[in-house]
Amino acid sequence: MATNTEKALERFRELNKTIKSYHEALSVLYWDLRTGAPRKGVASRSEAIGVLSSEAFRLTTSDEMGDLLARLGEQETLGSLDEINRRLVSESKKEYDKSKKIPPKLNEEYVILTSKAESYWEEAKENDDYASFQPYLEKIIDLTNQFIDLRGVNGTRYDTLLDDYEPGLTTAELDEVFGGLRSKLVPLASAIAASSHQPETAFLRQNYSQAAQKDFSLYILKQMGYDFEAGRLDESVHPFATGLSPGDVRITTRYLEDDVTSALFGTIHEGGHALYEQNIRQELVGTTLCDGTSMGIHESQSRFWENVIGRSRPFWERYFGELQKRFPGQLDVPVEQFYRGINVVQPSLIRIEADELTYNLHIIIRYEIEKAIFNNGVKASELPEIWNEKYKEYLGIVPPNNREGVLQDVHWSGGAFGYFPSYSLGNMYAAQFTETLERELPNLWELVGKGDLLPIKTWLSDKIYQYGKLETPSEIVQRVTGKPLDPAHLVQYLETKYKDIYRL
Amino acid sequence: MATNTEKALERFRELNKTIKSYHEALSVLYWDLRTGAPRKGVASRSEAIGVLSSEAFRLTTSDEMGDLLARLGEQETLGSLDEINRRLVSESKKEYDKSKKIPPKLNEEYVILTSKAESYWEEAKENDDYASFQPYLEKIIDLTNQFIDLRGVNGTRYDTLLDDYEPGLTTAELDEVFGGLRSKLVPLASAIAASSHQPETAFLRQNYSQAAQKDFSLYILKQMGYDFEAGRLDESVHPFATGLSPGDVRITTRYLEDDVTSALFGTIHEGGHALYEQNIRQELVGTTLCDGTSMGIHESQSRFWENVIGRSRPFWERYFGELQKRFPGQLDVPVEQFYRGINVVQPSLIRIEADELTYNLHIIIRYEIEKAIFNNGVKASELPEIWNEKYKEYLGIVPPNNREGVLQDVHWSGGAFGYFPSYSLGNMYAAQFTETLERELPNLWELVGKGDLLPIKTWLSDKIYQYGKLETPSEIVQRVTGKPLDPAHLVQYLETKYKDIYRL
Repeated sequence: MATNTEKALERFRELNKTIKSYHEALSVLYWDLRTGAPRKGVASRSEAIGVLSSEAFRLTTSDEMGDLLARLGEQETLGSLDEINRRLVSESKKEYDKSKKIPPKLNEEYVILTSKAESYWEEAKENDDYASFQPYLEKIIDLTNQFIDLRGVNGTRYDTLLDDYEPGLTTAELDEVFGGLRSKLVPLASAIAASSHQPETAFLRQNYSQAAQKDFSLYILKQMGYDFEAGRLDESVHPFATGLSPGDVRITTRYLEDDVTSALFGTIHEGGHALYEQNIRQELVGTTLCDGTSMGIHESQSRFWENVIGRSRPFWERYFGELQKRFPGQLDVPVEQFYRGINVVQPSLIRIEADELTYNLHIIIRYEIEKAIFNNGVKASELPEIWNEKYKEYLGIVPPNNREGVLQDVHWSGGAFGYFPSYSLGNMYAAQFTETLERELPNLWELVGKGDLLPIKTWLSDKIYQYGKLETPSEIVQRVTGKPLDPAHLVQYLETKYKDIYRL
Repeated sequence: MATNTEKALERFRELNKTIKSYHEALSVLYWDLRTGAPRKGVASRSEAIGVLSSEAFRLTTSDEMGDLLARLGEQETLGSLDEINRRLVSESKKEYDKSKKIPPKLNEEYVILTSKAESYWEEAKENDDYASFQPYLEKIIDLTNQFIDLRGVNGTRYDTLLDDYEPGLTTAELDEVFGGLRSKLVPLASAIAASSHQPETAFLRQNYSQAAQKDFSLYILKQMGYDFEAGRLDESVHPFATGLSPGDVRITTRYLEDDVTSALFGTIHEGGHALYEQNIRQELVGTTLCDGTSMGIHESQSRFWENVIGRSRPFWERYFGELQKRFPGQLDVPVEQFYRGINVVQPSLIRIEADELTYNLHIIIRYEIEKAIFNNGVKASELPEIWNEKYKEYLGIVPPNNREGVLQDVHWSGGAFGYFPSYSLGNMYAAQFTETLERELPNLWELVGKGDLLPIKTWLSDKIYQYGKLETPSEIVQRVTGKPLDPAHLVQYLETKYKDIYRL
């Protein structure tokens, strides 16, 4: 009996490792497409991605996998496994049950479509040509709707999508959380707009050498503890991080000549994602648990590093001199002015360049549009108009073109509906983790002020990173902070920070 | 009956396309490893490469494939197929029969080993540390010997390896061809050494800006007709070209600060390989016929562009001004002096930097060492000494270290034993093709002198490139030149060129 279980476990682990290898290969193919693959190779590459995805999908949903999971998933057997194997079996079972509902052909069609669509989105964005992208988006929405039907609806249709990125999260919960957040942030934003202490920002908009920007980005990544022997920094239209294995976690950024901090904060953001995956514990390597536990927790790390650390006063007390050195004569202002400048709050068009506060409004807009698509049947053709209306309503500004409007984000071209809420969840998790971190590392801000960031990385690795998918988001939040997710921490963090900056 | 054949053909084409997709994915993984993948990701990447290779191997040797090939390969059925399908079936049958003899586990072991070994070779070369690489090489030789035993020996053991790169080529034939070549080239090299008209070369060895080198390399690639929407130029330790699909054929080069032509001729060489694969006809795309027909024919194209065109007098009469412009004040010599300088013949240590004439001696050395390994059981531990002895004997010089000696080439780390002779075959094919090209495009050198290189690319595409693997090397040579391969053309080409330069 024990021998049978051992054999089943061995075979299951082997299959799981093979699936993980397919994921690694696919991640390389996607990374390559996004960092300069030649245009004319896209069609053939999409075929290859389709073939590999199908095979990974086939392995995940094979009868053999089903049998193994049924055997290993029996109450008694599961109880006899060690923690890692137990979790690996239950996660695989969940994935199996979910994927089993999708016909392989439909999955392949979806994979090929979304991998092509991303290139077409890139082109459409460059040419500000929504019409050329619309048919692809229509088809992606159509297939996503088919997936929802096949997987079954529990609550609203959109809930089925949310579950992919934040297991268990519902539209009802999000409505409440986002409602609460909005009710606190809107008055704060109004008070800020009315303040007579507006930061100066003009000095941030000069012509900044790209080479020097890159040099400083690399320098800060090293300070954060990013391991360059296990990663690299490249450029892409839309910055991203991708973990092929903990030994190879890559990030990309995008340099703007007229903005000294856009690429930098993008790099710190992606660097936060990368630290997470570079520091997953060795025993999980080569298994499908070797990944972030949810998009929300992942975003908590990117946004923690970008905002909580990277936009803090102590951080710039330490590093502003280093930045000034790289742009001689261009940043001759007091550090306090710089600190206030990079924390200016004002409505803007581009999500990834938004301040910490209004950022959440960008997310709420996307959340509402996605709900409207899947719960109310809104069409792709209607999106530019709805987008612009919502920007007018929530932020008081209207995009002058679709490039700075509905075409700005890569997500929908890849079919990632349900992902956006993760960003605001990430802000909330980050604020809550920070409170615990400040308690457990009482000299936190002194360390940041000295440029000694490694204890922070160590604490996060110890508490969060090493676990990969070994725990669920809610388990991690509970274990680390001693209580469930509570949006009040984010509100408090923002109020404290911005009342100081705007002297409210 | 017809319907059954059609069904079998359809399924076979589908399988073949899937196999081709695996090849594309693998090529991306290898390209990535060679162009800057982080060191710590190598182990995991090798696993992924192993998984994908195994699956491609499994598909190639599956019972289903065997059945389909048996059915489609019947004399009558084969005769009823169109040219492409006929060739695709017979090539796949050959591959099937060959691969079927290798146990999948052994193949996987080999693939994982060689993909790791390449990274270890790179490190060993950088540190001039042969001892660290030797165990890998031993293991590769051992596995290669097992493959030879499994595949069976016809002639000498080394013949089994040669067949992988130049189908049908034997050690006996090569001994004769290389013997003949050596008997003509050695006296020519002696006469050259004794000439009182030695080219000046010191001016080629200054400090040349890498950015300007890159700029000129890109410019020349464009002139050759390399399509940058279907390719890209990167850097790697060992320059290479890789065709993922005709829409994505990538090349790499390596810049030396103190040598203005090393990267350039490397780029032209790889560019020649790339032109071949960018111009394979559309009907072959997505099949395993979409590839060069042999390494020898492939090398004929790289070496044609590098030497016959790129080291010709008319080429530099057109382009020397362009080069001078990019290095102001560094190349103030007459074009004739430059032409003679880049065609200097002298014994040297590094194959890829050798002149056209002594290059063949580098190949003969590797050929003899490979023969000794597989036909006479010479061990990996003995190679540095044998290498150095042969360099002393054939070229009169001894490498001061293994980095410039036995560690210089990537090939053995990837298990590519039997590849090297292709380079000299390439030289011979190139000379023979050139003779026909000069006849069919009588104003060839006038066009080169005007920088009008596209008619050359068109002629080569028409005669060679578009065919992919649709014809064998000997079929191509016979069709294009009207006769079988004859090494006399290379001898004549070299004699004519170098008697002029050295005024013999």
